[in-house]
Amino acid sequence: MSGIMFKRMALIGIGLIGSSISHAARRAGIVGDITGSSSTAATRAKAEELGLVSKAYETAAEAVKDADLIILCTPIGVYGKIAEDIRPFLKPGAIVTDVGSVKASVVRDIAPHIPDGVHFIAGHPIAGTEQSGPESGFAELFDGRWCILTPEPDADRMALARLEDFWTKLGSQVEIMTPEHHDLVLGITSHVPHLIAFNIVNTAAHLERVTDKEVIKFSAGGFRDFTRIAASDPVMWRDVFLNNKDAVLEMLGRFSEDLVVLQRAIRFGDGETLERLFGEARAVRRGIIQAGQDTNAPDFGRRPASDKQS
Amino acid sequence: MSGIMFKRMALIGIGLIGSSISHAARRAGIVGDITGSSSTAATRAKAEELGLVSKAYETAAEAVKDADLIILCTPIGVYGKIAEDIRPFLKPGAIVTDVGSVKASVVRDIAPHIPDGVHFIAGHPIAGTEQSGPESGFAELFDGRWCILTPEPDADRMALARLEDFWTKLGSQVEIMTPEHHDLVLGITSHVPHLIAFNIVNTAAHLERVTDKEVIKFSAGGFRDFTRIAASDPVMWRDVFLNNKDAVLEMLGRFSEDLVVLQRAIRFGDGETLERLFGEARAVRRGIIQAGQDTNAPDFGRRPASDKQS
Repeated sequence: MSGIMFKRMALIGIGLIGSSISHAARRAGIVGDITGSSSTAATRAKAEELGLVSKAYETAAEAVKDADLIILCTPIGVYGKIAEDIRPFLKPGAIVTDVGSVKASVVRDIAPHIPDGVHFIAGHPIAGTEQSGPESGFAELFDGRWCILTPEPDADRMALARLEDFWTKLGSQVEIMTPEHHDLVLGITSHVPHLIAFNIVNTAAHLERVTDKEVIKFSAGGFRDFTRIAASDPVMWRDVFLNNKDAVLEMLGRFSEDLVVLQRAIRFGDGETLERLFGEARAVRRGIIQAGQDTNAPDFGRRPASDKQS
Repeated sequence: MSGIMFKRMALIGIGLIGSSISHAARRAGIVGDITGSSSTAATRAKAEELGLVSKAYETAAEAVKDADLIILCTPIGVYGKIAEDIRPFLKPGAIVTDVGSVKASVVRDIAPHIPDGVHFIAGHPIAGTEQSGPESGFAELFDGRWCILTPEPDADRMALARLEDFWTKLGSQVEIMTPEHHDLVLGITSHVPHLIAFNIVNTAAHLERVTDKEVIKFSAGGFRDFTRIAASDPVMWRDVFLNNKDAVLEMLGRFSEDLVVLQRAIRFGDGETLERLFGEARAVRRGIIQAGQDTNAPDFGRRPASDKQS
């Protein structure tokens, strides 16, 4: 064990990420007390019942009192309001960070509310599942994954070093970049993939000539993979797209342009172009497996038989 | 064990599906001898070494001699040529079927070559992984999955019943439909999802402002899910798109139309529309899990830690 890094950590929002941070920080033995807040009574009750926090408050302002590390884990749309609310209660020397999927808008919304003597460094662990809520977290979520930190140029170096150390002890590798570059990178590796997944699931659900029942029955042909991503939290994703508009629209433009090339190749029977482009895509998969960012097991290691019998 | 249904089965093409049929048929104890053919010497050697077939021939014509059940398991682009080649060697009373991902074009390519007294019934097991080759098959691949058969209106009822029984004993559930309806259903549940996956992987690989290395490192944000599907066999998929042009272009048109709605909602900050459409997509996932067509384990049950260490 590495010893206590933060005597008190406050988790503002206790869903998949908040609860996983609690589990992983406990596993590492690096925090003393953990408090939390949620505006939802059921979440507060569940978080206390599971021991994720010693006390779950209704407001963020109550939760941050005496905290040395404050992590915002709510949908990013309410970050500005939370920052405003907690401002008077932040302890001098405390570190405020977050886990939001967009960074430029988050810095814009939070930074102006941070008082002198408190350190703000925005962050984003690239990890998650399609499930949400305090019972969905687990200690291994961040193991081997990357956490991106986007400190402002004048960020306190010691605070940054401590936050890097914290994420490393949760199991992550840490990368530093600007908020703007983060938003471009995640636009293509996360935001546009989610948008496309949401979209095809809805397209399939509204066809007249193919029934919903058929879509579900025959989903093992590839469609079901998209439905996992499309089952992610709608409010969280709404806020991502509202706050990373420029990068998402840019990447989406490229995606649509490239799709037209494939569409024309299909229309005109250009098998050579199809085979070449499909072949190139294979190499990227190999790179991801070599980098330890996905399993090499066929079909993600899904159990081949139906789970409904078990 | 159910007893031998077919004294000799010939697998024309011994890749993921052909080898899995061999494993599953052996597990069920329903075939006597299994022969096979592949134009690739390495595949023939591997198939014999693994015991998938008693003898692997270079040509389909050699493999079908004395076979009671012949299953075409090559990319569908060569089906017409194979049907022409095997025609003189088909045993009276034999059943010819296939596993191709498109059905109308397959019926068009094969049916004219089937002599009187031989039964042709096209089929498609909705199962697979991103891997290919004779060593990638396994007996459980079809367990709990659907197999669609698309018999012509005058198909022999006894042959159809035997083929249904065969697929049931391999672990599948069987559904009957017309080739044209099959191609529409699979257009949306399989072909368009694959096209989109191939496309986004290539879009990501050709960005100027985000490096390939970054795409790979941060792929756990959603992108990596698409790369699995995009790692599927390029030749097989080329042939699918060349042979299901109309349905794919129709479904792709709907997809692009729907994507424009999301794109506009993002551009104009319409969070209500985004949240509503994202929420609807969740319900489809639940349906798929309830139908036993995917696992309920978070993240497909992927092992959370990186596999590279193991």
